[in-house]
Amino acid sequence: MRLAMLLGPDLEALTSDPEALKETFEEFHPEDVAELLEDLPASTVTGLVRALPPEMGADLVERLSPDRQEQVIMELRPTVAAGLLAELDPDDRVDLLQELEERDARKLLAQLATDEPEKHEETQELLAFEPESAGGLMTTEYVGLAPDMKLWEAVEEVRRLSRENEAETIHYVYVVGFGDKLLGVISLRDLILADPGQTLADVMSEKVMRVPPETDQEEVARLIARYDLTAMPVVDPQEGMLGVVTVDDVVDVVIEEATEDAQKQGGVVPLEDTYFSTGLVEFVWKRGIWLIVLFLGQLLTATVMEQNRETLLATVELALFIPLIIASGGNAGSQSSTLIIRAMAVGEAKPRDWTRVLARELFIGMALGVILGLMGFARGYFGGGGLDPLSFATAIGASILAIVTLSTMIGSLLPMLIRRVGLDPAVSSTPFIASVVDVLGLIVYFGVARAILAALV
Amino acid sequence: MRLAMLLGPDLEALTSDPEALKETFEEFHPEDVAELLEDLPASTVTGLVRALPPEMGADLVERLSPDRQEQVIMELRPTVAAGLLAELDPDDRVDLLQELEERDARKLLAQLATDEPEKHEETQELLAFEPESAGGLMTTEYVGLAPDMKLWEAVEEVRRLSRENEAETIHYVYVVGFGDKLLGVISLRDLILADPGQTLADVMSEKVMRVPPETDQEEVARLIARYDLTAMPVVDPQEGMLGVVTVDDVVDVVIEEATEDAQKQGGVVPLEDTYFSTGLVEFVWKRGIWLIVLFLGQLLTATVMEQNRETLLATVELALFIPLIIASGGNAGSQSSTLIIRAMAVGEAKPRDWTRVLARELFIGMALGVILGLMGFARGYFGGGGLDPLSFATAIGASILAIVTLSTMIGSLLPMLIRRVGLDPAVSSTPFIASVVDVLGLIVYFGVARAILAALV
Repeated sequence: MRLAMLLGPDLEALTSDPEALKETFEEFHPEDVAELLEDLPASTVTGLVRALPPEMGADLVERLSPDRQEQVIMELRPTVAAGLLAELDPDDRVDLLQELEERDARKLLAQLATDEPEKHEETQELLAFEPESAGGLMTTEYVGLAPDMKLWEAVEEVRRLSRENEAETIHYVYVVGFGDKLLGVISLRDLILADPGQTLADVMSEKVMRVPPETDQEEVARLIARYDLTAMPVVDPQEGMLGVVTVDDVVDVVIEEATEDAQKQGGVVPLEDTYFSTGLVEFVWKRGIWLIVLFLGQLLTATVMEQNRETLLATVELALFIPLIIASGGNAGSQSSTLIIRAMAVGEAKPRDWTRVLARELFIGMALGVILGLMGFARGYFGGGGLDPLSFATAIGASILAIVTLSTMIGSLLPMLIRRVGLDPAVSSTPFIASVVDVLGLIVYFGVARAILAALV
Repeated sequence: MRLAMLLGPDLEALTSDPEALKETFEEFHPEDVAELLEDLPASTVTGLVRALPPEMGADLVERLSPDRQEQVIMELRPTVAAGLLAELDPDDRVDLLQELEERDARKLLAQLATDEPEKHEETQELLAFEPESAGGLMTTEYVGLAPDMKLWEAVEEVRRLSRENEAETIHYVYVVGFGDKLLGVISLRDLILADPGQTLADVMSEKVMRVPPETDQEEVARLIARYDLTAMPVVDPQEGMLGVVTVDDVVDVVIEEATEDAQKQGGVVPLEDTYFSTGLVEFVWKRGIWLIVLFLGQLLTATVMEQNRETLLATVELALFIPLIIASGGNAGSQSSTLIIRAMAVGEAKPRDWTRVLARELFIGMALGVILGLMGFARGYFGGGGLDPLSFATAIGASILAIVTLSTMIGSLLPMLIRRVGLDPAVSSTPFIASVVDVLGLIVYFGVARAILAALV
């Protein structure tokens, strides 16, 4: 049976036959089923989830889009919804609750407190952390065992815990002391390999990487990538284990952060949803706000132009090259800002490296300026109308050299400055740099051109 | 002892005392040691690597930057270098060989063929795959066992294999038949959990995700992220196991690809190295090539301006608003292209969705055009010099509305078109879209302005 056939009329029949439905669903990966369900009416999805055993329903719901999750959860009776919530992995449960309206979330939590007090408490603890921090990303389902436990006992314990909950993959056993203090770690592989009669304390590695719960999720991702880990423990100030961040969540974080950075870079307030599931009004707002800010900044170009009205009237040829010249500056500046913002995002460059960056960009900017300046000189030679071709070409070429060099420096230093004062350097997006460079470019252009063409104006 | 102290004079002393060196290094994560060694002279690093036991040296070398690896490997005697190569994980070994000059790589391979024929053969097989494909990313070190093996035997076998080679983390045991045909998979956890007397065939899961070796590494990353896997088997057309791609390599791929996309988006040919380790000449080339192409395109703006020279001479006020107007188009177009390129990169949008995209962007573009057009109208009302304020303001406002709408459509459709014809949509970078939009924007502007101001010109 093909997966797409689930979409057909069979689906209705299946919903009324839970056993057949369960068997059908077991044939496919819940991720694929979830994707298919995105295009069906919410009520159909709710019907399906209701007909499935809770753990299978949870497997499906945790893979739906946030909007979908909200619709389905709110359509279920509170006790059924709470039962489903209880089956979700703790981190997914918290994510879902954070998506809901506060009033709805509170109602569900109250129901959970009645039906599953233990899960409720665990959820409350996780809800206290910022969603984009290690605390918000971690799961509380890890295996923590006492140091004096024998390896064979530990294997038995892992076995028992795994049977209870198949949810998260176990890669490591954490060795914890009084107050869940993190003492060491042992990989599942080493647990099988070592002599079963030894204790965990004998074989554990005491060098365990760990992070406090406030750590930004990007930083956690960077550490996990750097040290090739499959899980990162999260500890409180007394080194007590709070949970673990697993590598599969980190892959999602890295993709998500790259999307956010790309959107910021393009001058869009990051979307919370995918392109197609973002509403049109939200889009107009998230793009419009930046366009309005940029427009207000760009108004300065009209002012600079007005102030040079007389020069333009006297030499209209100067106007002809304005788009070419400011675009060259904008392009060179965008390159620099993109490179620096990304280098800072992956930790290659830090604001304190600004002198090194400055030296490099000054050289690169001048080299690029000379290349483009020569091209501009050649074009200017044939574009000066009745003006002295050599003087006019020199004015164009020199302006381009100056503007490209200046833009390169601004494009690289501005993001570092913004980061230095504690803001997100990605706000110095490509359009933002281009706007700054446009205004400065016009001032430089008119200054250089007037000086060189002084005799003519 | 602090890690940074390794940098001091102690280092020289340590190099001559291999035992103390080994003990010192064991205290730190090789990743941190490698980072520190990046700033030391290559000869010092080579001395250190030579003094360490081969497996520790390999651990260090595989974490150095590609340039560094090349220097160190080429400074070692061929037999020592080949010994070190043999200790590297197969995938890292291949990466390193691909970094070297072809002549050097061939020499090393010949040495490896003499000293370690088995490793040589394994390397040759991997070298046949594209570096950025599943084949290029996979390691050949996986555990593949026969289906009739009892679980307790399998555990023994994993134990034996792990002792021989601690290199890659084992998460799964693959069940393979004749010709290494992939039959099923069992996680290490399930291997411990199930009854030891059962066979692998009894407990294995037959639904194993797999990819052919030519699969692009981005696609592998997407699948691993989607299905929350820790490893992905790579198989030949006869379903024979070739190797596995592990999640830690995938995290690196995702970060690397995001950096490449950001650089393309900013109009830079992707760097192969970090910002600081890229040479200045390479930088000028990788940025200059795009700037030159963009400059040549932008030359069209000067041509359009020249063709409207008479209009400008008659109404110099029109020139004053040119930077403002074309920037609005550029910004709106950049937003669209950024959103669509990213949506295609993460698989949310496909070229065949173009009608849906068009409908959305048309609405969004018009809404944004109306907002910015009204702002332009207000500014134009006070910027027309001696012209009729209402007519002039209308010309500015209408031009902005038209240009923003047009730019939004171009910014979204052009990347899809480029993808459709099989090219990388990221070449339609922000500066590229801005250039196209500048030229079209000027044409629209002069057309609209002339029509509205017809009476005045």
